[in-house]
Amino acid sequence: MNGAEALIQTLKDCGVDVCFANPGTSEMQLVAAIDGQHGMRAILGLFEGVVTGAADGYGRMADKPAATLLHLGPGMANGLANLHNARRAASPVINLVGDHATYHLHYDAPLTSDALGVAAPMSDWVRKSRSQRDLAQAGAEAFSVAQTYPGKVATVIVPADHAWDEGSAAVATVALPVSPKVPASVVAEAAAALREEDGPKALFLGGRALREDALHAAGRIAAATGARLICETFVTRLQRGEGRVAVERLPYFGEQAADYLRDFKTIVFAGSEPPVSFFAYPGKPSWLSPEGAQLVRLASAREDALDCLTALADALGAPADPPVQARAIPPAEAGTLTPFNLAAILAELMPDNAIVSDESATAGMAAFPMTAGARKHDWMMLTGGAIGQGLPLAAGAAVACPDRKVIALQADGGGMYTCQALWTMAREKLDVTTIILNNGSYAILNIELMRVGVQNPGPKALSMLDLKNPAINWCLLSEGMGVPAVRVETAEAFRDALAAALAHKGPRLIEAMV
Amino acid sequence: MNGAEALIQTLKDCGVDVCFANPGTSEMQLVAAIDGQHGMRAILGLFEGVVTGAADGYGRMADKPAATLLHLGPGMANGLANLHNARRAASPVINLVGDHATYHLHYDAPLTSDALGVAAPMSDWVRKSRSQRDLAQAGAEAFSVAQTYPGKVATVIVPADHAWDEGSAAVATVALPVSPKVPASVVAEAAAALREEDGPKALFLGGRALREDALHAAGRIAAATGARLICETFVTRLQRGEGRVAVERLPYFGEQAADYLRDFKTIVFAGSEPPVSFFAYPGKPSWLSPEGAQLVRLASAREDALDCLTALADALGAPADPPVQARAIPPAEAGTLTPFNLAAILAELMPDNAIVSDESATAGMAAFPMTAGARKHDWMMLTGGAIGQGLPLAAGAAVACPDRKVIALQADGGGMYTCQALWTMAREKLDVTTIILNNGSYAILNIELMRVGVQNPGPKALSMLDLKNPAINWCLLSEGMGVPAVRVETAEAFRDALAAALAHKGPRLIEAMV
Repeated sequence: MNGAEALIQTLKDCGVDVCFANPGTSEMQLVAAIDGQHGMRAILGLFEGVVTGAADGYGRMADKPAATLLHLGPGMANGLANLHNARRAASPVINLVGDHATYHLHYDAPLTSDALGVAAPMSDWVRKSRSQRDLAQAGAEAFSVAQTYPGKVATVIVPADHAWDEGSAAVATVALPVSPKVPASVVAEAAAALREEDGPKALFLGGRALREDALHAAGRIAAATGARLICETFVTRLQRGEGRVAVERLPYFGEQAADYLRDFKTIVFAGSEPPVSFFAYPGKPSWLSPEGAQLVRLASAREDALDCLTALADALGAPADPPVQARAIPPAEAGTLTPFNLAAILAELMPDNAIVSDESATAGMAAFPMTAGARKHDWMMLTGGAIGQGLPLAAGAAVACPDRKVIALQADGGGMYTCQALWTMAREKLDVTTIILNNGSYAILNIELMRVGVQNPGPKALSMLDLKNPAINWCLLSEGMGVPAVRVETAEAFRDALAAALAHKGPRLIEAMV
Repeated sequence: MNGAEALIQTLKDCGVDVCFANPGTSEMQLVAAIDGQHGMRAILGLFEGVVTGAADGYGRMADKPAATLLHLGPGMANGLANLHNARRAASPVINLVGDHATYHLHYDAPLTSDALGVAAPMSDWVRKSRSQRDLAQAGAEAFSVAQTYPGKVATVIVPADHAWDEGSAAVATVALPVSPKVPASVVAEAAAALREEDGPKALFLGGRALREDALHAAGRIAAATGARLICETFVTRLQRGEGRVAVERLPYFGEQAADYLRDFKTIVFAGSEPPVSFFAYPGKPSWLSPEGAQLVRLASAREDALDCLTALADALGAPADPPVQARAIPPAEAGTLTPFNLAAILAELMPDNAIVSDESATAGMAAFPMTAGARKHDWMMLTGGAIGQGLPLAAGAAVACPDRKVIALQADGGGMYTCQALWTMAREKLDVTTIILNNGSYAILNIELMRVGVQNPGPKALSMLDLKNPAINWCLLSEGMGVPAVRVETAEAFRDALAAALAHKGPRLIEAMV
C-alpha cells in the first residue's frame, strides 16, 4: 500500500473513524485512502475553521480524536483559531496537513509555506513524516499524543510524495498513555486544608472534574466540608442539570471574579489552575485569588480528576450521596423577546441529555444560570476566546452523539466567522438547533471599550464594534446554506419555533432578535 | 500621547490612511487612536481573512500599504491565508496585531498564544514593540519595510500596555527605500542573448513588469527581437486590454506549461523567477523551462522592472511605439449560460479602466483569454493559491480606487471561505460587481484527483470535492449580507444583469449558474 493508505489504515485501527476534511490537490491520495477505508466517515467543511472546530466538538463528546484533513500551510492557518480553542479545551484532535512533495519544496511554488511553523503555535505536538513508511508511524504517534489525558492537539505534516509512494504498511496500535494519578500525599494535604475551621472554603473545578462522576465526588466533599463548588468561567464540557451536582460559575470580568473569590480562606483546585483575568486592564489585577488564602493544587487538568476527587471524598469520610439539582424552571415573561425570557423558555424545553454549544457572549449571559435546573445536559463553552467556535463545535458534537439533540447558542458576531458550518449541518443532516442571538453588535466590545478606559468614543470607533448598517439577515444566510430558518421577535414566537425545532430531527436555525 | 496614538499618528504621517479592522478587547486603545486620527479611514471586516485580503487588494492598486488591525494570535491566524497570497503578490501591507499586556502574558490567560510565532510564516518582517515609546518607531519601520519595492508584509505585535501607556510621541517618517536598479552589465547580457539568431525567444514577465509602462518597454523589445511576451500564470496586477501591449499567459497545468515553453532557445526573465509546477505530480517534472535553453535573469521581482526593460529596449535600438492590442470582442452564443458566452459578454460590457479580481478557477478559465481585447483594465489573480482571496481583494481594490468599477470573478468554492466580504462591500457601498461562477463543485479537484493518479474514485472521495447536497444559494447569502443579488442561467439574463450592475454605482452580485 502507499503511505496514505498505511496512515489511514493505522488511524482506523486506532479507532479513528471520522475525518473532517477540506482537502486540496496535495491531499488527493489521502482522499483516495479515506475513500477506500471502510468505516471511516468523511465530512466536508467549506472552510477550515469549520473542520477544526468540529473536530474539537467531536473530541469533547467522544473522548477520542477525529482526524482533520487540511491543505498545506494556508489551510492549516485557516484552522488555527479553532485549534487554539481545542488546545485550551484539552480536546483530542489529530490534524493531517498535506504539503508539497519533498523534492518540490525547494522550487518555492506559489503555495509553498513553512507548514511546520504554521502548525506549531496551536499544536501540542507536530511531526513531519520522513518517508512513506514513516507516515503510518507518525499517525500512530499522533494518536497516542492526542489521547494524552484528557486530550491534545497532534499534527502530522504529510508530504505528497510520502502519501503516494508505495511500499508502506499500517503499524500496530500504540499503547495508550494512562491518566496520571494524584499522589496520596497531595490528597491528604487537600483533606487537611478542607478540615481546618478557618473560614469559607471552595473547591475550584475545571476540565474533566466537571463530568458527572467527578462532580458527584465533589458534591460529597462539599457535603462533608461546607466547601462551595465553583467552576472555571469557560468550561470544556460541564455535565449539569436535574439530578446532578450543581456548581457555581466564576464571573467573566476580572474585578467581579476577584470580588467573588475575595472571602475564601481556602481554595482547592482540581482540573484547573488558579483563575486569571481574561484580559489585562489598566490598573486592574491579573491574578484573581485572594491574597493570604490557602491555595491547594489537588490536580492539574492533566491529572485524573475522578480518581483524586473520589479519594478526597473518602479521606474526608464524606456521605455517599450528595445533594443534587432539582428541576427548576424560571418563569418566562411574555411579549418582546429578551435574553431572559429566551433563557427561561430554553430551560423549560431543553430535552433530556441535550448538548449545548454556548458562544452566546453578552446576549446569552442569562442562559447559563437560568438553565441550571433544566433536564440533565452537557454544556460546552468557548474555551480559548477565539470567536467562531460555536457552530463548528455543535456540528462536531452532533457527529459524535447522533442520538442526542445539540443546541447551538450563538452570538451573531462570532457566528459570522464560521457561518459555513451551517452547510455541513445541512449536508450531514445533523440534529442541531441553532439559536442566533442577533443584537447587531460586538456588544462585548462596547463594554470593553469603557473598561479599558476609552472615554466618549466617536462614530468611527463605534462603527468598528457594530454589525448593523447593513443588518445581517441570518435566515437568508441559513436558507442559502440549506438549513431551514425562522426569525422571532417575541417570547411566544420563540417558544413555538424552539418547540418545533426540538421536535424535528435535523438542523434548524432560529434567529432570535434580542 | 499614549503608545497607540503615537503609532497611528506615525502611520498617518507616512501616508497610511486606511485601516481594515477586526479588533477585540486588546486593541481598544488602537480603535480609540484611529477614532481620533483625522483622515484615517476604518473599515470593519467580519472575519480576518476579509481584512487581510482587502489590504492586499488595496496595496496592489494603491501601491502603498493599508494597515490591518487584528486580535491577538488567533485573529492573526485567521488572516494568514490571505497574507500568504499578499506576500506572493509582493503587496505592501502593515499588520497591527494586538497582544496581551506584557505583564499579563505569563499568566497564560485563555487567549494567550505565541503571536510572533503565528505571524512569522506569512510575514516578511515581524517585530514586537519594546515599550510605549518604541511602538511608533516599530510602526515607522514597518512602513519602510512594507514599501520595499514592490511591497512586503510587515507585522507589528502591539502589547496592550504599550498601547495604553502614556509618554510616547510620533516619530519622523522613515526615508523610503528606492527600487534597486539592474546593473548595466546584466542589461547588456540580456541584449546579447536576445540578439542571437538561434531560435525562438521569450521575454517572461511578472510582478511590476506587467504594468502598462513596463509592458510598453517589453513590447518595444518584442518588436525589435521577435521575442514572445509571456506572463506568469498568476499575476499580481496585469494592465491589459485595448491600446496596451499584450502578453500571453503561461498555462496552469505543469505539463501544458512545459510543452508551451519547450521550443524556446532563449528566455529572459523580468519581475519573475523561472516558472515551476504549481504542485508536484507523480512522475511529472517540477521545473518547466526547457533543458538546454539559455535562461537570462534580467530582473527579479524586487528589482526595478520599468528601468531595466526600458534600458534593454534602448540597448536593442527598439522602435518607440510597439504594436498594441486592438479592441476585439469574441461572439457570445445565445441560450444556456456557459463559461464561454459569459466571458464574451463580460469582454463586451467591461467599462474602461475596470479592475478585475479573478479567483474564478476552472469555471472562469475562458474569461482571461476572451477579455484580452476588452477596454483597458487591470487584472488581478490568486497569487499564492490560498483560495478565499477574490472577494476581499475586490473590496480592497474598490477602497483604493473609488472611481473605478471593480469586477470580482469568483468561483463558488473559494468564495465560501471569505463570503463575509460581501457585508463589507455593502457597508462601505463599494462599487464592486461580483460574479459568482456557481458550478456546485471544487471542480479543479476533480481534475487533480485524476492527475495525481487516483483511479475510479468512490462516492466518498467525490463527496469531498462536491458543493451540492445541499446546493448553495448565493443570492440568499448575498442578500443576507446586504448586497442585492440576481441568479442567471442564460446568456441573455446574464447580459441584462451585468449591464444593470455595471450601470449602478455600488455592490451587486450575479449568481451565474455555469
